Amino acid sequence: MKSAIGQCIQLSLFGESHGEAIGVVIQGLPSGILIDQAWMQKQMEKRKPKGKISTQRQEADIPEIVSGVFEGRTTGTPLCILIRNENMRSKDYSKMRNIPRPSHADYTAQVKYQGFQDYRGGGHFSGRITAPLVAAGAIFLQMLKSKGIEVGTHVSQMQEIMDEPLADDEILLRKQLLALEDQYLACIQDSVRDAIQKRIEEAQTQGDSMGGILESAVVGMPAGVGEPFFDSVESKLAHLLFSIGAVKGVEFGDGFDFAAKTGSEANDGFAIKDGQLQTLTNHNGGINGGITNGMPLRIRTAVKPTPSIYKPQSSVNLKTGEAVTLQIEGRHDPAILHRARVVVDSMIALGLVDLLTERFGILWWKGEDACGGD
Amino acid sequence: MKSAIGQCIQLSLFGESHGEAIGVVIQGLPSGILIDQAWMQKQMEKRKPKGKISTQRQEADIPEIVSGVFEGRTTGTPLCILIRNENMRSKDYSKMRNIPRPSHADYTAQVKYQGFQDYRGGGHFSGRITAPLVAAGAIFLQMLKSKGIEVGTHVSQMQEIMDEPLADDEILLRKQLLALEDQYLACIQDSVRDAIQKRIEEAQTQGDSMGGILESAVVGMPAGVGEPFFDSVESKLAHLLFSIGAVKGVEFGDGFDFAAKTGSEANDGFAIKDGQLQTLTNHNGGINGGITNGMPLRIRTAVKPTPSIYKPQSSVNLKTGEAVTLQIEGRHDPAILHRARVVVDSMIALGLVDLLTERFGILWWKGEDACGGD
Amino acid sequence: MKSAIGQCIQLSLFGESHGEAIGVVIQGLPSGILIDQAWMQKQMEKRKPKGKISTQRQEADIPEIVSGVFEGRTTGTPLCILIRNENMRSKDYSKMRNIPRPSHADYTAQVKYQGFQDYRGGGHFSGRITAPLVAAGAIFLQMLKSKGIEVGTHVSQMQEIMDEPLADDEILLRKQLLALEDQYLACIQDSVRDAIQKRIEEAQTQGDSMGGILESAVVGMPAGVGEPFFDSVESKLAHLLFSIGAVKGVEFGDGFDFAAKTGSEANDGFAIKDGQLQTLTNHNGGINGGITNGMPLRIRTAVKPTPSIYKPQSSVNLKTGEAVTLQIEGRHDPAILHRARVVVDSMIALGLVDLLTERFGILWWKGEDACGGD
Amino acid sequence: MKSAIGQCIQLSLFGESHGEAIGVVIQGLPSGILIDQAWMQKQMEKRKPKGKISTQRQEADIPEIVSGVFEGRTTGTPLCILIRNENMRSKDYSKMRNIPRPSHADYTAQVKYQGFQDYRGGGHFSGRITAPLVAAGAIFLQMLKSKGIEVGTHVSQMQEIMDEPLADDEILLRKQLLALEDQYLACIQDSVRDAIQKRIEEAQTQGDSMGGILESAVVGMPAGVGEPFFDSVESKLAHLLFSIGAVKGVEFGDGFDFAAKTGSEANDGFAIKDGQLQTLTNHNGGINGGITNGMPLRIRTAVKPTPSIYKPQSSVNLKTGEAVTLQIEGRHDPAILHRARVVVDSMIALGLVDLLTERFGILWWKGEDACGGD
Repeated sequence: MKSAIGQCIQLSLFGESHGEAIGVVIQGLPSGILIDQAWMQKQMEKRKPKGKISTQRQEADIPEIVSGVFEGRTTGTPLCILIRNENMRSKDYSKMRNIPRPSHADYTAQVKYQGFQDYRGGGHFSGRITAPLVAAGAIFLQMLKSKGIEVGTHVSQMQEIMDEPLADDEILLRKQLLALEDQYLACIQDSVRDAIQKRIEEAQTQGDSMGGILESAVVGMPAGVGEPFFDSVESKLAHLLFSIGAVKGVEFGDGFDFAAKTGSEANDGFAIKDGQLQTLTNHNGGINGGITNGMPLRIRTAVKPTPSIYKPQSSVNLKTGEAVTLQIEGRHDPAILHRARVVVDSMIALGLVDLLTERFGILWWKGEDACGGD
Repeated sequence: MKSAIGQCIQLSLFGESHGEAIGVVIQGLPSGILIDQAWMQKQMEKRKPKGKISTQRQEADIPEIVSGVFEGRTTGTPLCILIRNENMRSKDYSKMRNIPRPSHADYTAQVKYQGFQDYRGGGHFSGRITAPLVAAGAIFLQMLKSKGIEVGTHVSQMQEIMDEPLADDEILLRKQLLALEDQYLACIQDSVRDAIQKRIEEAQTQGDSMGGILESAVVGMPAGVGEPFFDSVESKLAHLLFSIGAVKGVEFGDGFDFAAKTGSEANDGFAIKDGQLQTLTNHNGGINGGITNGMPLRIRTAVKPTPSIYKPQSSVNLKTGEAVTLQIEGRHDPAILHRARVVVDSMIALGLVDLLTERFGILWWKGEDACGGD
Repeated sequence: MKSAIGQCIQLSLFGESHGEAIGVVIQGLPSGILIDQAWMQKQMEKRKPKGKISTQRQEADIPEIVSGVFEGRTTGTPLCILIRNENMRSKDYSKMRNIPRPSHADYTAQVKYQGFQDYRGGGHFSGRITAPLVAAGAIFLQMLKSKGIEVGTHVSQMQEIMDEPLADDEILLRKQLLALEDQYLACIQDSVRDAIQKRIEEAQTQGDSMGGILESAVVGMPAGVGEPFFDSVESKLAHLLFSIGAVKGVEFGDGFDFAAKTGSEANDGFAIKDGQLQTLTNHNGGINGGITNGMPLRIRTAVKPTPSIYKPQSSVNLKTGEAVTLQIEGRHDPAILHRARVVVDSMIALGLVDLLTERFGILWWKGEDACGGD
Repeated sequence: MKSAIGQCIQLSLFGESHGEAIGVVIQGLPSGILIDQAWMQKQMEKRKPKGKISTQRQEADIPEIVSGVFEGRTTGTPLCILIRNENMRSKDYSKMRNIPRPSHADYTAQVKYQGFQDYRGGGHFSGRITAPLVAAGAIFLQMLKSKGIEVGTHVSQMQEIMDEPLADDEILLRKQLLALEDQYLACIQDSVRDAIQKRIEEAQTQGDSMGGILESAVVGMPAGVGEPFFDSVESKLAHLLFSIGAVKGVEFGDGFDFAAKTGSEANDGFAIKDGQLQTLTNHNGGINGGITNGMPLRIRTAVKPTPSIYKPQSSVNLKTGEAVTLQIEGRHDPAILHRARVVVDSMIALGLVDLLTERFGILWWKGEDACGGD
């Protein structure tokens, strides 16, 4: 469905990197949800480029809610978030119009849109278009929090540098997620954060870029959410995660490590703990048969290195057919892993809010303090 | 959308392992597509349990097309495929009604459907429900073949045993896919096939089970297919692949290996080969910005070990809350990797047919020999 | 979406008049709904041709539920209803293959499907395909009944013959709907029923056919159901009603009569009756701004005369381009109004169950007596 | 799908009457469509209130395209149209917060959104929200024009005043539509226009309002467009037309008049005219079996009188439960029929563009002059 998605909660995303504005329309939100714009802005900050490990393009990125909120709460009618573009340097791109950047969408967009695409800064394919998703995600994450559900992500791996994994124990996991919440380059271990920061800075110095793996967890999800087959929790979340430009792999629970295990090593036996059915291990990442089992969700997302590097690369002039050695200019990210973290959280939150609404209905979200206008 | 999916081509899947029948309705097929029922049956054979490496449940699995085909060709109106269940032993399951099998959907279905689910043999969650998908997939795969697009999958890894990877060179890749076509346990290298066969048989002897990794490739896809963001080729295919019960990981191109690379190592430069724009490498698996670039698609799918093992496992009686040591009976697969291969091909084919129809329109599929009734 | 529809509850319809079988898959049903197959069969009887006012084709039309029901209740997984075709006389049609019947779908199907359609008996366009909708409708109507919501329809007008309109008073309306329930040619006034019966018989004798208007009402709908704009109750129900082949007009409340009124004559003032807010009149047919207001829904549906008449008609041989005087043979309905009644009820019920599920969630349907298996 | 709709072309509508801005996001547009903003503005003028027959609220209503257009043509990525609200008098509404206006959505929105809706000026239910639909419609209408397809609507009836019907003859019909194009109160006959103008002015003087019937026609539609059952042309267009707030009836071809006819009077015989298959009459309004037959589409839409009248009306204070005599203040339309005309054209155009794209594919729209950037 193009740049639109969702069953109960529907997103319609729009905008180009160098156009007037970018934004998103959210259909299907419950009414009466308190919007914490300060926290929304805090989420936006996590996606903003900062320091030597990010691009130098600076955007205010203040989401303007132009509909769907009245007296501080959602009305239940469509909510549109608008973000104006400001800090554009479109001339940086004009000379590259016919020379596609390797591993970018320049060539594929040219074929698909037959030359009519806004090629400046990647147009609609720019990572910048994820900014409205983070603003929308702030609403979904708050909705989940109101039900005791927490979502969090850390930079788990870059080359050989590996962070400690998130815990399966609920209490410990909630602590870890809380600790990650306000970090910019979010890692569990300080030493890992420092090492990754250094590795990205080195790449930046060399005109190169880095990828890595993000690990996410969700705690507090009720059991029984998700559908068999085509709307399995894995299908739904993977669909959303793979819509983020640089994501090339997604796994749940032990994921690709299952290949090394036997059934007896991989199965999660059941037991009653604190009067509640739980699994003794969590190899399946909280999902059986596409449906949540009440254990924490465990998700890993592979993010490829930013394709915009300053080293010379082989390309072709699409007009003339001549081979070209391309030297990319402009301002680019030596890594986006740290900035993508909050986009991943937002996509997971969207998927879960959609599935929870399908399960429990839209009226389920109405909080105790919700009481309407006078 | 529950057990239904698709934009232009829509599938609605139904049935339970021990019910009357299982099947699928396909909406949106072009008219005039020649249906090769013999080849459909051949595809069904690849999914059928055979030998010691599969379950002993034997089903004829002859797909009956009850609508949408007239005089051997699709009518363009909905096509329904029906498969009767025959070889059921429902009593095997009755005593386990309240004792969920670890890592199966028994517990999550119990919560979701509140005890009303057909619990026999996994009900709608059974791997058996993928049989109609293979029949439907035979149609999609034939449509792709008519356009020169080939899809194929091999068992690429089980524990430390690794098969040769599929090639990026188009001519070589087409040869590899052809060679895989008629195998039951499909591997590129004979020695690998033997080793994997043996490993599964060992697991079977020990009452245990094996998982592994399937590698798929698609050759012949035109460039420019797919959508930015939510209908990226990765999103669409991952959604479909994760709807297969045992799939816990999906990656495209280098996938999780991107974490080890820099941008300069990971980018796919462009060049003109044989008068056509190609990439020099194929780290991105034929997809840039969610859209095909004309290179082969490369997809890897992690399949967890079959959860049905004969070794004793920890469970809980959901009625009484008592801890139970569960010893599963009945007939089960010591591995499903080899049988899942053709399901993976079918899901990829569905996704591509849907995306190609969205791109080129339904009339694009009409073959030269299509001329309607007299 | 081709022959598929619905948001929370999704239908996928299949089959041709002279094919193997016709049927429907329903996705998204709540679990635990008691299926009353005897009542389903009773509903089927209302759609069956009977007497001189209907076609002479006799079909058993016994719906076979092949999935989604276990121990008499819905499982919550897809429910497939199958009806085998039996009493076919396909040779009646073969000579007309290239001569489209006026006002039938023969010509438009020929263009759309380019000659590959199953032309026998109208194929997928046959009124016969509504049989599975009636079986599905029986489930939706029972779900509504369990919530105190009644749907009913009568033949309200044929030429100058007019039945008494359905009442706006809830108690009276419930009585009227109850009285209509078991009728075959359903009218409020006995004299009107007799006159309409006679009028159809006269048309049958003359080889001609009759159309008319069906009036429907829904009582017991809670206020607040429906969406602004594109999922207004009117949009949703009209979409479903216009999917019935012969329907060419739909109106809500005063409908086209609004053209004769001023705002002061047409507005429905508010008052409190029996402690509840109601409207003093019901010109708007229970819907304001696309959303139910708690008053009875009032819907009128125009059904065109059956296009299959025995009188000679002008047509064209599509192969040769020659003008042809067509004399239709075979067995046909001189009117379908009386048989369409229960199809209209079924479509309204589907629309309301979908909207109610969107509003209150799937768990809302769970009745008191629902308690799952032992 | 809330305030979103469409299969190939998807609209997501947002905004409230007294909010920051209203607008729409269009997903799925082909690339390379030339946007004629001057003509878009001309279409907006037809919807604008003018003279004594409309509200006195004056809005500039200049659509700002914030994404999806580059160098004057569509990019193929989402197109967002934004219209700022300016001339608001929110205080007019505050005292009526708890007193629902009869036949408005005030009460139903209160129930649905539980008091959180933006009640000012009808919020998201305001007729004002149709302004972005007209801007979007201008794009769809231009796309249709580029294929020789014309859509047009006139005020056909108000009380006993009746305009001449639109012709079925293609040449005459194209002339009629051309003549209607630039009118504000669009009628075929000058005398009818004057009479209707006078009738609305009288209602305005009396603090009352008028409804009526709009007749639309579409000429140039290719045969074979539309789907059996749930995406019949009638279903699709009725769904869109009933999403306009004041619409309470929709009919195609002879519509409700079919009730007075026999099959032999109502059937449209076939003949070859000018080497092309046509129907001798057009009782079915260009649609057989839900699919276009190449004849002009004929559609009639019933529009109820504006519910905002100045005469005293019965209402209830929702807080206190007391009966209230309500005297509406503010600025209101004594009729919206003339302004709704262009909204009806826009909705029909959206439906047809969606169906044509489904039929012929997105690349079909690419005009001869389309050649992309340099």
